[in-house]
Amino acid sequence: MSTSLFNKYQARWKSTGSLLCVGLDSDITQLPDCVRAEANPIWEFNRRIIDSSAASACAYKPNLAFYLNDGLRGLEALQKTVEYIPAEIPVILDCKVGDIGNTMEQYAVAFFDHLKVDAITLNPLMGTDVMQPILQREGAFAFALALTSNLSAQDFFLDGGMDEKVSQWIDGFPPDRLGAVVGATQSKDLKRMRRLLPGRIFLIPGIGAQGGDLDSVLRSAAESSDQPNILINSSRGIIFREKTPQFAQAAGEAAKELNQLIVV
Amino acid sequence: MSTSLFNKYQARWKSTGSLLCVGLDSDITQLPDCVRAEANPIWEFNRRIIDSSAASACAYKPNLAFYLNDGLRGLEALQKTVEYIPAEIPVILDCKVGDIGNTMEQYAVAFFDHLKVDAITLNPLMGTDVMQPILQREGAFAFALALTSNLSAQDFFLDGGMDEKVSQWIDGFPPDRLGAVVGATQSKDLKRMRRLLPGRIFLIPGIGAQGGDLDSVLRSAAESSDQPNILINSSRGIIFREKTPQFAQAAGEAAKELNQLIVV
Repeated sequence: MSTSLFNKYQARWKSTGSLLCVGLDSDITQLPDCVRAEANPIWEFNRRIIDSSAASACAYKPNLAFYLNDGLRGLEALQKTVEYIPAEIPVILDCKVGDIGNTMEQYAVAFFDHLKVDAITLNPLMGTDVMQPILQREGAFAFALALTSNLSAQDFFLDGGMDEKVSQWIDGFPPDRLGAVVGATQSKDLKRMRRLLPGRIFLIPGIGAQGGDLDSVLRSAAESSDQPNILINSSRGIIFREKTPQFAQAAGEAAKELNQLIVV
Repeated sequence: MSTSLFNKYQARWKSTGSLLCVGLDSDITQLPDCVRAEANPIWEFNRRIIDSSAASACAYKPNLAFYLNDGLRGLEALQKTVEYIPAEIPVILDCKVGDIGNTMEQYAVAFFDHLKVDAITLNPLMGTDVMQPILQREGAFAFALALTSNLSAQDFFLDGGMDEKVSQWIDGFPPDRLGAVVGATQSKDLKRMRRLLPGRIFLIPGIGAQGGDLDSVLRSAAESSDQPNILINSSRGIIFREKTPQFAQAAGEAAKELNQLIVV
């Protein structure tokens, strides 16, 4: 029996009423002064953010780039962070990987077997090969980029029709193993993507710093109050709400406020 | 004046006659027994491979997945490896990253500013945003995935027309900042891609373990003997030629033999 993110997400939603994914884009250059002197500033920052936001979080999403940026210490911060997050809260590593089979297997070993995250984001451009190591691991889950929230998503997702081509491709995999990253900038696009991919979890970035409108996102993408199948991600708007010694408390309040606005 | 991989590659080709890129896919589970007891097995393996193959190498290409797979020790092996490779030999980090602007900037800091590689591979699916941190760094260079050598490249590159769409996109950036990864499985596809992208360096994987035919690759992709604009990558066929205590010598011979077959 599978215990993938699909189930863990549903359980977390039912027990807490939260659909909020807290993005741990913990940019070392943006941390509050009060953690900079710590032996591992990113880890210290994350630990306190998690303590203050966990009650409002349906999931956490650290982005690999922000950890690699601090070298060995950053990778150690990532390991400690994933280990620290309470077991009932799913962890999604945002790494957008996509490679040939034997290389994807290495990423799967690194992220699922060693780091022990619940899910990764993946880039589907290289085709079905990128999913094999996910499918071969019981309970492993991925979110494939189906439409992103950045301006130049226009280039290939919209003008190139990759949003629909990738959606058809995603549709060939079980919903308890593969979700979709669907950017939040245009409600008409979100509606279209939801029609193409019913019953599948959408990881929706682009709220807050990237400018997506929450109400239209909820109307366009959420399925039902029993199974909304959405995760609304916010990163900078939560974790960097304040850069004072009270940063963690402020982040916890920001998470709580945003969570209360996510009504399905 | 730019000193990007474009120039370093031309200089290396002119001084050594090599167009061979040695792929350092140094899978921790595949290393010869004689290095397994070392404090950092991947680093010890790479050091000896580099010593024996540098004379035949136009470039080295470590793939990030194989280093993350060994955790902090793996990332340290990657750092030491990049530092150890002689300055005149370009280093390409194969990471296939592609993300929104502020995240790509983090990767650029990690890979260009800290790790100090000459180039990275990138996934163009999210559009022009992925190139901004490259363009903003003097001398930074990337290879965008234009057509890969895996079987499921069919899904989006060939059936979805992404090979031509990405080629048009690549064509909008200067050749001294952006090359193309072009898989080596079909000579007709290589010819077509070369017509679309003249004067640009092709990083060509898929020789050896992935089954590309060298002669047809050379006829299809090399431009002129003065400026061939190709880099032929081989990984497992060189570094894992032998798993004996003489592994490094065997790798050096494999690199020399393959290099002698790359005649333009």
